Amino acid sequence: MAGTKRLPRAVRERQMLDAAVACFARQGYQAASMDEIAELAGVSKPLVYLYLNSKEELFTACIRREAQALLAAVAEVVTDVSVPPDERLWAGLLAFFEHTAGHPDAWAVLSRHARTQGEPFATEAARMREEIADFVTGLIGEAARAAHGPVEIGPRDVAALAQALVGSAESLATWANGTPGATAREAAATLMNFAWSGLGNLMKNERWSPR
Amino acid sequence: MAGTKRLPRAVRERQMLDAAVACFARQGYQAASMDEIAELAGVSKPLVYLYLNSKEELFTACIRREAQALLAAVAEVVTDVSVPPDERLWAGLLAFFEHTAGHPDAWAVLSRHARTQGEPFATEAARMREEIADFVTGLIGEAARAAHGPVEIGPRDVAALAQALVGSAESLATWANGTPGATAREAAATLMNFAWSGLGNLMKNERWSPR
Repeated sequence: MAGTKRLPRAVRERQMLDAAVACFARQGYQAASMDEIAELAGVSKPLVYLYLNSKEELFTACIRREAQALLAAVAEVVTDVSVPPDERLWAGLLAFFEHTAGHPDAWAVLSRHARTQGEPFATEAARMREEIADFVTGLIGEAARAAHGPVEIGPRDVAALAQALVGSAESLATWANGTPGATAREAAATLMNFAWSGLGNLMKNERWSPR
Repeated sequence: MAGTKRLPRAVRERQMLDAAVACFARQGYQAASMDEIAELAGVSKPLVYLYLNSKEELFTACIRREAQALLAAVAEVVTDVSVPPDERLWAGLLAFFEHTAGHPDAWAVLSRHARTQGEPFATEAARMREEIADFVTGLIGEAARAAHGPVEIGPRDVAALAQALVGSAESLATWANGTPGATAREAAATLMNFAWSGLGNLMKNERWSPR
């Protein structure tokens, strides 16, 4: 429909970021070239520089966009507080693993390349991870308050649980994307089996302790 | 006792690696200088180059040594198969978090700097993580076989659970080292609360499923 008509800037930018994520994921930050990214996006290299300024800013924009997209995919399915906490966690985990499985290049950029290319990207990735951990902390806190009073699980316990959950989800997403035949549902079920009974017991104020 | 006497090579090398881990952890790989590392180790810079060849090889040697030390600290306490699985997991987690808390520079090098400085270090760190995951996979597999037959939890389930456990342990170790007052015991207890009931139910062949 657009033909040779000029596309809106937002559309062009999206094409550039899509191409950049694919190139960065497959070749790494250093090896990926602006020529290839421009070619894959179907635009001229000067236009990429005009819109995104530099390879560094392009990479940073990729990290930001993909982190926000992942966060949004999870947030969307866990907002209904009338749903029981285990079902909300299940929905959130399934959305997370479906997103990482459906966007393997984006996940590779976020989980691997953003962390392995030094600064300023590592700090950018850490900031986004913090945002996701805060979000999960809120979710666990809500579940705890719904289950019993706010006293038994302190804010630090909740933050620590969120770190455990985020770390295991990251680890499983990378494992699933690298394991032929592994599905998002399987990864989500593994994490529910691993985690939910533990969290569920905690919500009932039952704790494991050494004998 | 040694005075000005020449020290054995192994002792000198250990001093150099100790100094290097401290410098790399605090300043990062790029900013850390061989001059400072030599000074902190109390040796001449040419001796550092004679023993370790280059900054790159020195950093790689740090990653290897610290990964092996962490693995050994955990392996040491979980070898007694007559101990019940939950107690073995507890002992292993406690040893892990005590090691990461007691060697924060080493943990910073392994979990952050080794992964954020590009290649060849990221691959080296990934290889070491794989070794730790294989080790945990073996531990979970043993626990599963002890609890019931080898049929109900397949090797892929076990590998996925190990990835979840390793990921949450990594995440919690970094959280504990950055949280004033958080102890190794607290981190280990959080992970047991988070994980054990889930693993424990799985060992009894009870699985969580969506309603």
